[in-house]
Amino acid sequence: MSGLTHFDAKGDAHMVDVSDKPVTSRIATAGAWIRMEQATFDLITEGKAKKGDVIGVARLAGIMGAKKTSDLIPLCHPLPITKVTVEITPDASLPGLQIEATVKTTGQTGVEMEALTAASTAALTVYDMVKAVDRAMEIGGLRVLLKDGGKSGRYEAR
Amino acid sequence: MSGLTHFDAKGDAHMVDVSDKPVTSRIATAGAWIRMEQATFDLITEGKAKKGDVIGVARLAGIMGAKKTSDLIPLCHPLPITKVTVEITPDASLPGLQIEATVKTTGQTGVEMEALTAASTAALTVYDMVKAVDRAMEIGGLRVLLKDGGKSGRYEAR
Amino acid sequence: MSGLTHFDAKGDAHMVDVSDKPVTSRIATAGAWIRMEQATFDLITEGKAKKGDVIGVARLAGIMGAKKTSDLIPLCHPLPITKVTVEITPDASLPGLQIEATVKTTGQTGVEMEALTAASTAALTVYDMVKAVDRAMEIGGLRVLLKDGGKSGRYEAR
Amino acid sequence: MSGLTHFDAKGDAHMVDVSDKPVTSRIATAGAWIRMEQATFDLITEGKAKKGDVIGVARLAGIMGAKKTSDLIPLCHPLPITKVTVEITPDASLPGLQIEATVKTTGQTGVEMEALTAASTAALTVYDMVKAVDRAMEIGGLRVLLKDGGKSGRYEAR
Amino acid sequence: MSGLTHFDAKGDAHMVDVSDKPVTSRIATAGAWIRMEQATFDLITEGKAKKGDVIGVARLAGIMGAKKTSDLIPLCHPLPITKVTVEITPDASLPGLQIEATVKTTGQTGVEMEALTAASTAALTVYDMVKAVDRAMEIGGLRVLLKDGGKSGRYEAR
Amino acid sequence: MSGLTHFDAKGDAHMVDVSDKPVTSRIATAGAWIRMEQATFDLITEGKAKKGDVIGVARLAGIMGAKKTSDLIPLCHPLPITKVTVEITPDASLPGLQIEATVKTTGQTGVEMEALTAASTAALTVYDMVKAVDRAMEIGGLRVLLKDGGKSGRYEAR
Repeated sequence: MSGLTHFDAKGDAHMVDVSDKPVTSRIATAGAWIRMEQATFDLITEGKAKKGDVIGVARLAGIMGAKKTSDLIPLCHPLPITKVTVEITPDASLPGLQIEATVKTTGQTGVEMEALTAASTAALTVYDMVKAVDRAMEIGGLRVLLKDGGKSGRYEAR
Repeated sequence: MSGLTHFDAKGDAHMVDVSDKPVTSRIATAGAWIRMEQATFDLITEGKAKKGDVIGVARLAGIMGAKKTSDLIPLCHPLPITKVTVEITPDASLPGLQIEATVKTTGQTGVEMEALTAASTAALTVYDMVKAVDRAMEIGGLRVLLKDGGKSGRYEAR
Repeated sequence: MSGLTHFDAKGDAHMVDVSDKPVTSRIATAGAWIRMEQATFDLITEGKAKKGDVIGVARLAGIMGAKKTSDLIPLCHPLPITKVTVEITPDASLPGLQIEATVKTTGQTGVEMEALTAASTAALTVYDMVKAVDRAMEIGGLRVLLKDGGKSGRYEAR
Repeated sequence: MSGLTHFDAKGDAHMVDVSDKPVTSRIATAGAWIRMEQATFDLITEGKAKKGDVIGVARLAGIMGAKKTSDLIPLCHPLPITKVTVEITPDASLPGLQIEATVKTTGQTGVEMEALTAASTAALTVYDMVKAVDRAMEIGGLRVLLKDGGKSGRYEAR
Repeated sequence: MSGLTHFDAKGDAHMVDVSDKPVTSRIATAGAWIRMEQATFDLITEGKAKKGDVIGVARLAGIMGAKKTSDLIPLCHPLPITKVTVEITPDASLPGLQIEATVKTTGQTGVEMEALTAASTAALTVYDMVKAVDRAMEIGGLRVLLKDGGKSGRYEAR
Repeated sequence: MSGLTHFDAKGDAHMVDVSDKPVTSRIATAGAWIRMEQATFDLITEGKAKKGDVIGVARLAGIMGAKKTSDLIPLCHPLPITKVTVEITPDASLPGLQIEATVKTTGQTGVEMEALTAASTAALTVYDMVKAVDRAMEIGGLRVLLKDGGKSGRYEAR
């Protein structure tokens, strides 16, 4: 057994059968950051009030991105998402923004991919809106912070 | 002038008017990596031949992801993409995979967002297929490596 | 308490958590009309038999539109729709068409948005098919007529 | 000749052939309003600053809605949109919000449907976010205000 | 040279670069049929007038399907379709329906895939609407009948 | 009673009400084949190892196609798919490929349309990738092989 559940015994990709898994409450949180120049950081954080709400647009894009996960990720099951929140916090030490996305469902598979897709979509949306002034921004730290509710138990990133 | 072109004078988000920009050949390349445990790395790199082609599925997901960019990123213009390639290379020093996505168009705006979306979708697809054995994988280094063809000239990441 | 449940305590938009709401049968009906010139009205109502089934195409567009609701409306939950009907009736007194869309689900949130989206998509489709002869058509009366099945009880428009 | 260009000589629906139409700059503006109770109006207009930016979310939904037009409206051609703006203005006399969406393209068909879809999506998004406090909101006045750039010349609503 | 242009020298799938291909008028026609029991055939052909327009719904589904081609077929380029028609004709000798879909574009790649997708979507939609009375229907003859306008010249099926 | 459940008493298309149907485990398998020239067949079957994995790409496209069924087929209910597999087997006697798609759900309606859409999408993807060397390929035998789990009982194609 290789442990790669998305492939069958012959090595062919398939969408894993979850028919017999119980319907349970599931939650996942994913994180990411986007690092930028100091001047860009100042523009965004001031801009929230005066020049355009970069963070508000990115947050909304992240929420909508979560709903597109099964369309983007080939072997991902479609899921009835019951909650999405995306928190975006300025972090002067990067400088840049910290992103945290939480998704819940009541279903037969976990929502890590939805949380990761929400976080990456929010980060990409920040890039899009600010790229005219800073092409060198970098996105990193995209990973699962917390997952709970399925057979495999609770996972928390160290 | 704030430089945040995605917002108008009042600070309201809008899709920038590109009607008067010339139709030119444009190209962009974006990079990303996904870092994993050594055992996971071995599974994927051996798996290409025997247990399931993680890299092949992720490459295809990246290509298809590029086509969904204007659907994911709120203020992104829809573009007639003319080429997408996604290169995924094992990097034993991470250990993990290096991803590089290149997108071309003949149009009125650049394709950085398409290249970034292709790279991040490929990386997320790797996570999805391997998460059963390694939840702690991390995606980073998501950034524009090259952009050329528009008014703002050639950009290459240092 | 502001009552605006789509925003959290800080005023940030989120997709409301419905995880703990019971799964119940829910129904909603929305209405709309499209008003046109008398000659246009005659063309459509005669046309049903002879020159092209404007009403049939619009009805189908409305049904398909209901399925796209969570893709269109940012904070809307995806829902397993169990029924959609769209009734389109000529109304000589407008002159124009009366549209009524009914959607059912068995789920954790209501289907008002699905019914409204079905009705507006049907109305917009009429506009599209007839705009070559009548640009001044106007759509109005788009509202919820009936909602039932959730915690907030039955609502009927006066 | 019936004038219903979306149907052929037999009365069958088709997507009109625009292959031989010239590629020209085109623009369209559509309007709509959403009427609500006075208390709801106060909540939204105050809320912009303090409790949640209903107008900002609706504006973004309208912009994204314009990009989905050819997916929603069955016989609509896909178009490379080059600009979308959505203006939402409080109107105390309704009381409610006035919505105005403008779309531009350089293409072979007009963008009235894109402007109408943007305006209606923005209006529906307002309904969604505020429906918990006011179910009786009504959307109306959805119509083309301006269209220019094609063979049929300039159209302005009276 | 293998001739499989959708794979690079290493055998990796990619979206072929069409940046340097000229923008020309292109057309393609695809055919398909769906065979059914005599009683089903009678139901559909009578039904057009009295009990429900199976053919009208399937025709519209085919037209809309053409617009989803680049979303369905992984390595297909997105294209600005300029015309779609779907003809569905009862064929008593099958018994069943003959489907013919024609798509045009002004672009850099052909529209065979769009025509094939339109034809297959129309056929599948017939199956969906009639499956309650005839599960054994079969779809066949799905192929390109005509292609013209690109570098590779005119192709007509024998 | 006409038996055409997708139309109401007036003959108008609607999405059938499944609200009162029990939630049960459902499965469906659909088949299809694509016939090609001998040289094309050799290219694909050798190519799996050396020149590009046509079958792997087509299999993945089929799986993703299943998830788009309710978007493609107008009156199809959206369903939470719990499993998709697509088997593609070279058949030297055609010569060509045999495709078999199996879909499972736990829901209120069957998954025949999902299985048929998976099979046809896989077949169309083969056509797309190989069309540069063989335009005359033909897709046929697209039909339901097995269906089980709903009120109407088990169906197996003869």
